[in-house]
Amino acid sequence: MTAQTAGTITGAPLAPIEYADASPEVRAVYDDIMASRKTDWINNFWKYLAHDPQNLRRIWSDIKAVMGPGALDPLTKELIYVAVSITNGCRYCIASHGASAQAKGMDAAQYGELLAIVGLANQTNRLAVALDVPVDVRFSRT
Amino acid sequence: MTAQTAGTITGAPLAPIEYADASPEVRAVYDDIMASRKTDWINNFWKYLAHDPQNLRRIWSDIKAVMGPGALDPLTKELIYVAVSITNGCRYCIASHGASAQAKGMDAAQYGELLAIVGLANQTNRLAVALDVPVDVRFSRT
Amino acid sequence: MTAQTAGTITGAPLAPIEYADASPEVRAVYDDIMASRKTDWINNFWKYLAHDPQNLRRIWSDIKAVMGPGALDPLTKELIYVAVSITNGCRYCIASHGASAQAKGMDAAQYGELLAIVGLANQTNRLAVALDVPVDVRFSRT
Amino acid sequence: MTAQTAGTITGAPLAPIEYADASPEVRAVYDDIMASRKTDWINNFWKYLAHDPQNLRRIWSDIKAVMGPGALDPLTKELIYVAVSITNGCRYCIASHGASAQAKGMDAAQYGELLAIVGLANQTNRLAVALDVPVDVRFSRT
Amino acid sequence: MTAQTAGTITGAPLAPIEYADASPEVRAVYDDIMASRKTDWINNFWKYLAHDPQNLRRIWSDIKAVMGPGALDPLTKELIYVAVSITNGCRYCIASHGASAQAKGMDAAQYGELLAIVGLANQTNRLAVALDVPVDVRFSRT
Amino acid sequence: MTAQTAGTITGAPLAPIEYADASPEVRAVYDDIMASRKTDWINNFWKYLAHDPQNLRRIWSDIKAVMGPGALDPLTKELIYVAVSITNGCRYCIASHGASAQAKGMDAAQYGELLAIVGLANQTNRLAVALDVPVDVRFSRT
Repeated sequence: MTAQTAGTITGAPLAPIEYADASPEVRAVYDDIMASRKTDWINNFWKYLAHDPQNLRRIWSDIKAVMGPGALDPLTKELIYVAVSITNGCRYCIASHGASAQAKGMDAAQYGELLAIVGLANQTNRLAVALDVPVDVRFSRT
Repeated sequence: MTAQTAGTITGAPLAPIEYADASPEVRAVYDDIMASRKTDWINNFWKYLAHDPQNLRRIWSDIKAVMGPGALDPLTKELIYVAVSITNGCRYCIASHGASAQAKGMDAAQYGELLAIVGLANQTNRLAVALDVPVDVRFSRT
Repeated sequence: MTAQTAGTITGAPLAPIEYADASPEVRAVYDDIMASRKTDWINNFWKYLAHDPQNLRRIWSDIKAVMGPGALDPLTKELIYVAVSITNGCRYCIASHGASAQAKGMDAAQYGELLAIVGLANQTNRLAVALDVPVDVRFSRT
Repeated sequence: MTAQTAGTITGAPLAPIEYADASPEVRAVYDDIMASRKTDWINNFWKYLAHDPQNLRRIWSDIKAVMGPGALDPLTKELIYVAVSITNGCRYCIASHGASAQAKGMDAAQYGELLAIVGLANQTNRLAVALDVPVDVRFSRT
Repeated sequence: MTAQTAGTITGAPLAPIEYADASPEVRAVYDDIMASRKTDWINNFWKYLAHDPQNLRRIWSDIKAVMGPGALDPLTKELIYVAVSITNGCRYCIASHGASAQAKGMDAAQYGELLAIVGLANQTNRLAVALDVPVDVRFSRT
Repeated sequence: MTAQTAGTITGAPLAPIEYADASPEVRAVYDDIMASRKTDWINNFWKYLAHDPQNLRRIWSDIKAVMGPGALDPLTKELIYVAVSITNGCRYCIASHGASAQAKGMDAAQYGELLAIVGLANQTNRLAVALDVPVDVRFSRT
C-alpha cells in the first residue's frame, strides 16, 4: 500500500507522501517547489497536503504567486507571514516561516522586534474593540 | 460633568477624553504622543483609553518603545501591525494602522500584496493544524 | 405573518421575537429569564435566538446553570465573561455583559484593570506560542 | 486517593476519570454516552471533563441534543464540527471529530474538500474584514 | 479619476469597482463570476477586492475550484463556509454565505442546527484545550 | 557560546537563558521577578523571552504593573488571565497561570466553574455574531 492510498482519515493522514512514493501529478508539484526555491528537499507541510493533489497544486500555486518578489521584498513578506502565524498559534507555520525569514536575512534583533509588535498589536486590538472606539473621520473612506 | 468622570461603564465609556477636558496626567501623555508623532491631534483610540490614565500611560509607553526606528524600519513595523489587526478583525486598528502605513509610504500595490499574504497565511495556518504536520527536524531547535 | 415565521435567513433572522408575538414555548423561557433576573424586559440576544426555540431553551438553561451563585461570585463570573467576549471581539456581548458586570458592582477602576489584563494576556499568549516555551515541569500534571 | 479527588489543578487535572473510579453520578453519564453512541468505551474528553460532574452532565446533554439526527444529517453535523475545530486549532477535537466523521461515512475526497473550504473561508474572512466590505442590500435584513 | 486609481488606502479602498468602471482584466473576472453563478450582478466582496486585479483573479479561481460540485454537495460546502465565518466573526461573510446557503436550499431548521453546532464546537474546543486532553490512541495516526 | 548569543532563530530560540548565563541586564529582571513573587526560581516564559532583553524588561514591567493588588484582587486577576489563555489556546499560559491561580487560592470547584463560563462565553459570542444582534439601546453609550 503506497502512502497515497493510506489516507484513512482520523483527522489527519497517516504519513507524508515522500517523493519516491508520489504520483506523477504530485511529483510535478514537488519538482516545481524545489526549482522555485532552489532547494533539494520538500518540507512536511507539502508532503501532508499532497494527500489531496488538487489542494497541493492550488496552494503551491497561491504561495508561488503571492510570496515571490513584488512591491514588498521577500523578507518583509515572510515577516508578515510569521506575524500572522504567531497570532493564529500555528506551531508548524511559526517554525517553517521563521526558518524561511532567517534564510532571507532576518536576524535576532529583527525577530525580537517582530515579537514585540505582534504581542503589542494583539493587545491593542482587544483594547480598541473593548472600548468600541469609533473610526476617526480622517481614517474613513469617503 | 466632565468626560473624565462620565465613565459609567456599560461595556464602554461614554465619550472620548478631549484635550480640553483632560487632567494634567492625561495631557502629559497627549503632549508626548503629538511630539513623538509630530502631529497636532490625538486619535480616538487614545481618547477612549484615557478613561484609565494608567492604561493610557503604559500602552503609549509600549507603542513608543516598540514602533520607533530599530532593526525593522517603521513601514515594515506598520505592515506587521496591520497584518495582525486584519487577522484579529479589529476594524478600528485596521483603519488607523492602515492610515499610518500609508503615511509611512505604503502604496496600493504593497497593500494588495499584504492582503494577499494575510489571507494566504490564515489559510495555510489552518491546513497545517488540520493535517497535524510535524515540525521538520531542520526547523527544530536543538 | 408573525415574527416567528418570518425567519427567511440571509445570515440572520429578520426581526427579534417580541413577547407579544412569542409562542407559548418561547414565552415560557422569557418568563423564566425575567423571573431569574428579576427584570421586566428581554434583551435582544434572547429575542433573536428565539427564532429557534430549542436553541433558546438550551442556551438559557446553560446560562442559568453556569452564571448563578457558586464557588465564584456573580461579579467574578461576569468579569470572566467580559474578558472572553473582548478576546473574541463580540461587540454585542461586550456591551451586554459589561452592563451586567456594572449592575453587579463593577466600577470604573475595576473595568480599567480588566482591560489591562485582557490586553496583556492576549499579548503574552502570543509570545509564549511564538517562543514555543516548554511547560515547566512543576506546572505539568504527573 | 481516587482520581476524582486528585484534582489538584495546575491548569489541568492529573488524570482521566476511568469508569472503574467514577462516582455513580459520573458513571450514569458514561453509561448514557455509551448507550447513545452504541460503543463500549469513553474517550479522553469526557474522562477529563468528568472532574467536574456538573460540566460533564451539561456538556453531554448539549452534545446529545445538538448532534443527533435532525434537519441536518449526522455526517454534515460532524463536518461542521471539524471545520470549527480546525479554525480554532483544537488538536484533540480535530482528531476526535475527524474520527467521528470518518465513522459516519466521510471519505478521503470529502476530507480534502473540507480542508480546502476551511482554508479558503479563513482566507476570505480576513479579506472581507480588511476591505471593510459593506453588506449588500440584498443580503441585509429588512 | 476612475475608481480603480482612487486606491488611496487608509485601511480600505474608497469605493467598489463597478462593472462600468472596470478594466478589461477585471471585467473578465466579473463575467466569469456571473456566468458560473448564473447571476447578473456582482457582490461587494468582489467589487472591493477588484482594486487589486491579481487578488481578484486568484481568489475567484480558488472559489470556483473549491466550491463547485464535488465529493461534498454545494449546500454542505456553504454550511461549512458559514460555520467558519461565524467562528471568525466576519459579518460580511456570514451575510453573503448565509444568503448563498439559503439559495442552495438551507431552511430555518437547518440554520438553527448549524448555529447550535457552531456554538457548541466553539465551547468544547476550549474545554479540550483547557483540560489538555491527550489524543486517544485510537484517534492517532500510526 | 553562551545561551544569549545562540539565538539562531528558526522560529524559536535554541535554549532558555539560565540565571548563570544571563547578562547583568537580564539578571536584574530575574532578580526583580523573584523579589516581587517571593520565589527562588524563574519560569521558562521569562527564560525564553530573555533572548531579547528589551522585551523581557518591558513585559515584566507590564505584568508587575497590571497583576499586582488593585481594584481587583490577585486571584480574580489570575482567573481572567486563565480565561483569556484558554480562549486563545495558549497551552503554556494555561499551565502557568493555572498554577498561579491555584497558588492564589483557586480550588477545584472554582476551576470547574471558570471552565464552564469560558466554554459558554465562547459559545454565545458566536451566536450573537451569527445572529447580528443589535446592541440594546439601554446598553449603548449616549
